[in-house]
Amino acid sequence: MSIESRCPVPLLKHETIQMAHGAGGRLSRELTRKVFLPHLGNRCLEALDDQAKFFLEAGMVAFTTDTFVVSPLFFPGGNIGDLAVNGTVNDLAVGGAIPRYLSAGFVLEEGFSLAELERVVKSIANAARIAGVQVVTGDTKVVQKGQCDGMFINTSGIGVVKKGINVSCSNLKPGDRIVVSGTLADHGMAIMTAREGLSFQSGIMSDTASLNGMISKILDEVPEVHAMRDPTRGGLAATLNELAGASRTGIVLDEAALPVRPDVQGACELLGIDPLNVANEGKVVIAAPAENAEAVLRVMREEPGVSGKDAAIVGEVVDDHPGMVIIRTVLGSRRILEMPLGEQLPRIC
Amino acid sequence: MSIESRCPVPLLKHETIQMAHGAGGRLSRELTRKVFLPHLGNRCLEALDDQAKFFLEAGMVAFTTDTFVVSPLFFPGGNIGDLAVNGTVNDLAVGGAIPRYLSAGFVLEEGFSLAELERVVKSIANAARIAGVQVVTGDTKVVQKGQCDGMFINTSGIGVVKKGINVSCSNLKPGDRIVVSGTLADHGMAIMTAREGLSFQSGIMSDTASLNGMISKILDEVPEVHAMRDPTRGGLAATLNELAGASRTGIVLDEAALPVRPDVQGACELLGIDPLNVANEGKVVIAAPAENAEAVLRVMREEPGVSGKDAAIVGEVVDDHPGMVIIRTVLGSRRILEMPLGEQLPRIC
Repeated sequence: MSIESRCPVPLLKHETIQMAHGAGGRLSRELTRKVFLPHLGNRCLEALDDQAKFFLEAGMVAFTTDTFVVSPLFFPGGNIGDLAVNGTVNDLAVGGAIPRYLSAGFVLEEGFSLAELERVVKSIANAARIAGVQVVTGDTKVVQKGQCDGMFINTSGIGVVKKGINVSCSNLKPGDRIVVSGTLADHGMAIMTAREGLSFQSGIMSDTASLNGMISKILDEVPEVHAMRDPTRGGLAATLNELAGASRTGIVLDEAALPVRPDVQGACELLGIDPLNVANEGKVVIAAPAENAEAVLRVMREEPGVSGKDAAIVGEVVDDHPGMVIIRTVLGSRRILEMPLGEQLPRIC
Repeated sequence: MSIESRCPVPLLKHETIQMAHGAGGRLSRELTRKVFLPHLGNRCLEALDDQAKFFLEAGMVAFTTDTFVVSPLFFPGGNIGDLAVNGTVNDLAVGGAIPRYLSAGFVLEEGFSLAELERVVKSIANAARIAGVQVVTGDTKVVQKGQCDGMFINTSGIGVVKKGINVSCSNLKPGDRIVVSGTLADHGMAIMTAREGLSFQSGIMSDTASLNGMISKILDEVPEVHAMRDPTRGGLAATLNELAGASRTGIVLDEAALPVRPDVQGACELLGIDPLNVANEGKVVIAAPAENAEAVLRVMREEPGVSGKDAAIVGEVVDDHPGMVIIRTVLGSRRILEMPLGEQLPRIC
């Protein structure tokens, strides 16, 4: 008599998450078998051990973690599932690594819809397939109703650093050009307009996407790249301030060159938000020697679809004012682009 | 003029977590610099890149993730910080791996005490030092008051599998002996008595501890070990049912041999809970060939302190009733030890 034959009643008769789904017993196991494995299944995950095991060749390994608490969970252009996969894939890729393996840790609120959970898991599976990574280990916890907001997801990731590549946020050199791979602020404004009930009118979509394909091509053609970052929380302003601070260099940005979609610009003005403080989730900022900047731009623009078509060289690294980002406005004046405090845009990822 | 000189006011004048601490701007950076780096600092973390990078020799790598939502955050014998480190270290160790690198992802509730956060971070640092691992990458998110319960922590971990070791929960062989490294149910009952306000009377302490030292010695002396698991959520009952199910073998347990502290047994009776369904966080269950079981037991008992002194051989693996765990009671009768449903013990880790 097997365990299954003693439990003839399907345990997922529930339509919502129960406390016992997170308690490590029969319901936990059923959730894994009925919701997670069918979409994410692979040799490692199916072993149902407490850890995934895989062979890695000798070399530099990249390791990153991110917890996603975005609200709302579903937004124009994506949901918390593909956002989590793409975010972690991109954090590996901007380190010069080829992303390989992800973990997924869920915190679910009691009463959360199983159908919505399955939608998110499908998005995770789809985003992982596009990025060429596997979700090899996972964990699910459940908290009482009112003790988390629907669902939080942690994705951690492992990648293998490409040989001969040494990028770091402290690697900026005076003379480097700053290249962005497309329009700024799309993700954050998709979330903000969804929250304000403006998403139907605005049509602004999140740019959530995995960048490892594009970045790998760039590094193959231009291994001289000095630094890469994806401008997520805090937007381009936070990213450039971090790069300038870590590298003890200045940065001068050319406002006229910054690509922002007109609808995103309009929504920013409506809500009183500077687009340079707003997150992307599918763009990369690259610092490369001046003589290589056009080559970086060309690879970005050759990307299929729309992802790289608005790529632009937007500024340069200077000896002056180390740690500070200066913006040359369209009117010809200069102002400091501050590190944002960040309180305007909570829970965008 | 550096950024610091333009921000003369200390940003951590706040005594509690603000939304902007999680928004990727100045307050996020200050939280990292003032709370996380002083305790956890190492070369990788201090680089403040979006990913840690380190060299790994060629070989099998173990990767695991766990989110901790324990309530209360502070309990007799530990807190969510050391619990998170030890839990992830142990999930690597029971896979036969030497734990090396951890990530830490925090979800904090707006208004959470910065002093309590720092206590937790100190515990993380201390537990990591004892286990010989480094926290090399991290992430902090903040959600509005009421949208999470104080603090959740995800720890993911990377370890290097010891050469010549092949343990898996599907490796049980008939004839194997089941060895536990000490008293059962300590952690879960420490949490339950803390919640019920009984902890002062009971004196029950969590057994949270890293097991990688003990497990490494066991594998050095007895590389023939077939399977290892730490009996956390769902307790010994869940662990043995999983091992039996994955290995398609039966297990017979000897009730008289099961080590349970009298105070834990008493608290279980008071609260109507079977100690076999209750989590440990510092014990390991090992299945080893009969001829090696005494050697496993000896290494456990040689552990310094009290961790291994109550280790015991508690059962054996059989050909009969595959997937099922049978318990031989002290009265000589036999009953099925079911996989617990788990709803009795929410949020113990």
